[in-house]
Amino acid sequence: MADRSFPGEFPFTRGIQPTMYRGRLWTMRQYAGFGTASESNARYKYLLGQGVSGLSVAFDLPTQMGYDSDHPLAQGEVGRVGVAIDSLDDMAVLFDGIPLGSVSTSMTINATAAILLSLYIAVARRQGVPLSNLSGTIQNDVLKEYVSRGTYIYPPRASLRIITDIFAFCERELPNWNTISISGYHIREAGATAVQEVAFTLADGIAYVQAAIDTGLDVNRFGQRLSFFFNAHNNFLEEIAKFRAARRLWATIMRDRFGATNPRAQQLRFHTQTAGSTLTAQQPNNNIVRVAVQAMAAVLGGTQSLHCNGLDEALGLPTEDAARLALRTQQVIAAETGVANTVDPVGGSYVIEALTDRIEREAAAIIARIDDAGGTLRAIETGLIQQEIQDSAYRAQQAIDSGDTVVVGVNRFQADDAAHIDVFQVDPTIERQQIARTQAVRATRDADACRSALAAVTAAARSSDNLMPPIIAAVEARATVGEISDAMRVVFGEHADTFRS
Amino acid sequence: MADRSFPGEFPFTRGIQPTMYRGRLWTMRQYAGFGTASESNARYKYLLGQGVSGLSVAFDLPTQMGYDSDHPLAQGEVGRVGVAIDSLDDMAVLFDGIPLGSVSTSMTINATAAILLSLYIAVARRQGVPLSNLSGTIQNDVLKEYVSRGTYIYPPRASLRIITDIFAFCERELPNWNTISISGYHIREAGATAVQEVAFTLADGIAYVQAAIDTGLDVNRFGQRLSFFFNAHNNFLEEIAKFRAARRLWATIMRDRFGATNPRAQQLRFHTQTAGSTLTAQQPNNNIVRVAVQAMAAVLGGTQSLHCNGLDEALGLPTEDAARLALRTQQVIAAETGVANTVDPVGGSYVIEALTDRIEREAAAIIARIDDAGGTLRAIETGLIQQEIQDSAYRAQQAIDSGDTVVVGVNRFQADDAAHIDVFQVDPTIERQQIARTQAVRATRDADACRSALAAVTAAARSSDNLMPPIIAAVEARATVGEISDAMRVVFGEHADTFRS
Repeated sequence: MADRSFPGEFPFTRGIQPTMYRGRLWTMRQYAGFGTASESNARYKYLLGQGVSGLSVAFDLPTQMGYDSDHPLAQGEVGRVGVAIDSLDDMAVLFDGIPLGSVSTSMTINATAAILLSLYIAVARRQGVPLSNLSGTIQNDVLKEYVSRGTYIYPPRASLRIITDIFAFCERELPNWNTISISGYHIREAGATAVQEVAFTLADGIAYVQAAIDTGLDVNRFGQRLSFFFNAHNNFLEEIAKFRAARRLWATIMRDRFGATNPRAQQLRFHTQTAGSTLTAQQPNNNIVRVAVQAMAAVLGGTQSLHCNGLDEALGLPTEDAARLALRTQQVIAAETGVANTVDPVGGSYVIEALTDRIEREAAAIIARIDDAGGTLRAIETGLIQQEIQDSAYRAQQAIDSGDTVVVGVNRFQADDAAHIDVFQVDPTIERQQIARTQAVRATRDADACRSALAAVTAAARSSDNLMPPIIAAVEARATVGEISDAMRVVFGEHADTFRS
Repeated sequence: MADRSFPGEFPFTRGIQPTMYRGRLWTMRQYAGFGTASESNARYKYLLGQGVSGLSVAFDLPTQMGYDSDHPLAQGEVGRVGVAIDSLDDMAVLFDGIPLGSVSTSMTINATAAILLSLYIAVARRQGVPLSNLSGTIQNDVLKEYVSRGTYIYPPRASLRIITDIFAFCERELPNWNTISISGYHIREAGATAVQEVAFTLADGIAYVQAAIDTGLDVNRFGQRLSFFFNAHNNFLEEIAKFRAARRLWATIMRDRFGATNPRAQQLRFHTQTAGSTLTAQQPNNNIVRVAVQAMAAVLGGTQSLHCNGLDEALGLPTEDAARLALRTQQVIAAETGVANTVDPVGGSYVIEALTDRIEREAAAIIARIDDAGGTLRAIETGLIQQEIQDSAYRAQQAIDSGDTVVVGVNRFQADDAAHIDVFQVDPTIERQQIARTQAVRATRDADACRSALAAVTAAARSSDNLMPPIIAAVEARATVGEISDAMRVVFGEHADTFRS
């Protein structure tokens, strides 16, 4: 128990602000999106009416992979796991009636982050909102896509270039935007332990910071806009300690490895989502309990932002009722349990402090091993990180199979009766509608202007110019997500998964 | 932060066992009972099949008040808030097929505790179970009935005599029985603060211990079988600290005020129930979240036994599904969250230790004030305790009315749609059935034997003989709960609520 610092002080173990939630509650941000832009827009307005304090956009796989809805690879996936966005016309509908100057928006978008951020900027301009008023986050964390999530397009080094272009652009134009959300969530969902989640996430962070410094950016400036995204898993005490350990370790890395002196560039700020992988299709109401306890761990661990999973997410996307109850879970914790009135309530606990120390020490050892293996990029290319995650996932599954790990309703306390809950269904006709919309965009836009805007994207990709201005110009010329992705594909190529995994 | 003792050591702040749940989980004991004995028997078997580790019997109001089902005052109340038990015939059905030697049973019964315990003993004898194998608890805490719950019959001093007779009898015959469950639960539900809950409950405990010592019982013996019952309310950190403070304060009282040297007589063991008063009829699924967080507080506070409320308990008795989910809440916490693997996980936390100290100090001050006012009985008789509870309840309601206290779904985050959940209905024909059963008992028993057994109860009440043996003889002669209560009413009289309240 080496660290007896106060909240708001380096290394921020006890929280990044001295007053934490007494000054400002975490952002209640419920991840949502499905079908077309207009359906998702209705869900966002519903959630805002129910009291969410930030939006969080789920995109469908084609949008995440840089394919338009009418691309052959998009078939059957349009609007399925998130909203389908092909062009500025869609993005304008997605945020219709939602003033972007006064809402904070997180977008789970990675390989096509530059394009979706450009679309957001274009909508804000249409709304007359100054870019300096925009606040939100793009996930923009491609490294974890290679090891755990899978929605990458370009090879790693091209991806890093796009990412650092976004850092540089936002530093000038969107000073309140979180330029990346370095994500352990999916690493954990893929089967990593708590220690691995911290280690691999911070290792990705190290790679981004190094890449940005290598392009000449100032760690004290871009470092302020880095954010993180963690999982709130089942082990209540370990999870609380994990968040504290991650803060301490990152602050130390930023100061000692990268020379950051600005406290805001040392602070690890993070969003949390409860662990989807712990939810069960059996007895789905048990998931309400799991989510409540996981959310408590996130809050006791000092999260800046939180998504609670819907009770039905082992079965499909959440229904409106399930989404509301997930939000109510946050509201009950915030308004009724009193935990927001105390800063770092578990600080000083013998067990929590010991766990915090252990997680920090073990994660630092993994990071040192990655350094020895040639760094994060190399550890991804050789499959080292993927292998360690798979080994952990295998052990976790073995423990469930043997009954050493109890999953209530699955390998103990099963019930005979089947669950009777409504499952959310995406309208199967939306794929056709969306394709028609996108083809109408192509038919009605200024084709020459669009073509030359796309050529400018390709030219920027070939040069070392920042990619963001030509991408913004392209989306404003109503070029589609797929077309802009292709304009870079011709330069960067596609990443084939030749990593050992 | 004066106390740095280990778990299992005086003053037991950190738990009564050195290994806590690593050695043995808390007892999952779900309060249940409604309608007739056979309906309740079916619910107990269901709950045992779902994994409860102890039974907890809810009796209807006539049974609690010493009226048979055919008494005019019982009309409309038979089987409504709990099971109707009139005679040994009913009690035998209630536990039919449930081996009393291997289940632990808690009974929420106070003014008629001696009678219901006698019925339990009679059933055990029929099953051939030695009394020394019986384990369980009777609530048997009449003092809190005067201040908060209302099911008293006799005046306070007669009630204390019955209670100490039970202590003495069990010390000889039922060595594994908890002779009382000194209950803060209802005091809290009536509106007391956390500090008042501790203070008034321990003040009641002091009165019982003093009464038992005054009758010549040995504090090191009967003190081992005292148990407590607390509320797990909303304020997560305060509740955890409350349990720790209550343990420390009681251990100190038993050692320093009463000279108990046996560690088991110094230990405060307690059952916990989540706070029914915090549940809302609006958006009842929000109650699942409240109950989960409250249950976590009880577990982190080291409870020995736990009841989780059903999500529908603001609307009626729990349905079978609601009762199962309440149990699953306990099972998820026990099996999935890892908190049972660590002893006193919050011990050492700056906030928790400070709250523990504060609650102990403030509760001790209230107890000192009660001492100065002439002791617990006098403080009840003058209405001092009732008045303080009412003042707190009034302030709590004011805070809700003004919106200073947020109740999600009630004074914030309301929804337009009505709740659609099934509400449990007690079969309205059971009153007639139960009356017929009891009249059949009267018609078929040996009337002379019954009459003389009842006369023996009255004679014992007039003397200083222990009441338990004649009451057991009376229940075995198939005398009813109402008749045995009357056999003591003629001696003790009834308590009229002339207290200021």
